[in-house]
Amino acid sequence: MARQLYDLCGIDDRLRFSPYCWRVKLALAHKGLDYETRPWHFTDKDAIGFSEQGKVPVFVDGEHTVVDSYEIFRYLDRAYPDNPLLGEGEAESRARFFKFYAERSLAPGMMRTIVMDLFNAVHPKDRDYFRETREKAMGRTLEEVHAPSTGLTLLDKALEPLRGRLSEAEFLDGDAPAGADYLIFGHFMWARTVSTADLVSNADPVYAWMERMLGLHGGLGRSATRIVDIEGAYGS
Amino acid sequence: MARQLYDLCGIDDRLRFSPYCWRVKLALAHKGLDYETRPWHFTDKDAIGFSEQGKVPVFVDGEHTVVDSYEIFRYLDRAYPDNPLLGEGEAESRARFFKFYAERSLAPGMMRTIVMDLFNAVHPKDRDYFRETREKAMGRTLEEVHAPSTGLTLLDKALEPLRGRLSEAEFLDGDAPAGADYLIFGHFMWARTVSTADLVSNADPVYAWMERMLGLHGGLGRSATRIVDIEGAYGS
Repeated sequence: MARQLYDLCGIDDRLRFSPYCWRVKLALAHKGLDYETRPWHFTDKDAIGFSEQGKVPVFVDGEHTVVDSYEIFRYLDRAYPDNPLLGEGEAESRARFFKFYAERSLAPGMMRTIVMDLFNAVHPKDRDYFRETREKAMGRTLEEVHAPSTGLTLLDKALEPLRGRLSEAEFLDGDAPAGADYLIFGHFMWARTVSTADLVSNADPVYAWMERMLGLHGGLGRSATRIVDIEGAYGS
Repeated sequence: MARQLYDLCGIDDRLRFSPYCWRVKLALAHKGLDYETRPWHFTDKDAIGFSEQGKVPVFVDGEHTVVDSYEIFRYLDRAYPDNPLLGEGEAESRARFFKFYAERSLAPGMMRTIVMDLFNAVHPKDRDYFRETREKAMGRTLEEVHAPSTGLTLLDKALEPLRGRLSEAEFLDGDAPAGADYLIFGHFMWARTVSTADLVSNADPVYAWMERMLGLHGGLGRSATRIVDIEGAYGS
């Protein structure tokens, strides 16, 4: 049985925007593993009931079902040890920090910038669910969260360590990309697929890294369907 | 010849507050290496002229002179391979990010909180130099930089990934501290030695980690002289 990844989709089945699913797709490409994606919507809880939780990514590899992007990275390193994503020992311990940096330093500024784009990208049947869960988590309405100028300022500050590191190396993991790069880049794919906002100036070392990341694995990121590729996506 | 570390001191020779020198002192303790410190002031350029640059830490180990805290970590791992600080490959690549995170995410919020404490802690003969170089680097006067409430808000945001990681592990490097922990903790020692500001609430996972870090290596951090230990330090 082919490997399967349940992958969040939006207003169109081709629009795949979950940062956590992007991590996994990049990781699978890094390992050179084939898989099929199963397009999934936020409210398709029954379809992943077998995973005993309600979120994607859900990765199925034969008898193994693995959830949570970081746990999937761990699983892939155990099951397919070539080309480590995280590695072991201190390499793995340090990789965990990048996960939190993406989710807690980068995501908030991105969210304030793209939240209404994101809402527009969500499948209509998921919008009530999306609004309700996100407003509860953030403690304010989506419209209140929406503040692109504030968001870009937050993001600019949050990018500082990334900028420093990428001034001295091609990738966070050195001469070639690995787990840390994918853990961060997932969030850039999230923003890229749903929004046309320019998050990073093209003179920024982070921009050059984004370009390198978009080109990896046969242009996996660059060729991803974006909201602008979908006819009628803007409320026609 | 004993190993020597040129170590920045302030208003009193016992007051050692450089975050970069703290990294190195923690790293030397981690390796179990003996050394002597040479108290140094910002304007004692001649004393380290042999290092062909003007900043500390300067570490002298027999025939080897090494400058820059991160380069000293690298040197220590090469010369004394037991108990790696940074390790190799992806572990080392990922460690570099912590250096930038400390310097570019944490330091700015700390600086806005403690800058006048820091100025007060600097040796009187160094104060003109300190003011001039820092004001030039920051593009505003020390008094304009001083904004503790803003600083603490910035720091609170910047601590988010650290908080996340330290909610799941005792140390950034896992069950035991290593290079990533020291690269970050140097800046907490910087603030602690010159200021009584509470940077982190005692309910924060970062606080519990700070307590663990202070207790390492025989309480090296906890026993360090602080500004409050120095009689007459507050402008008497």
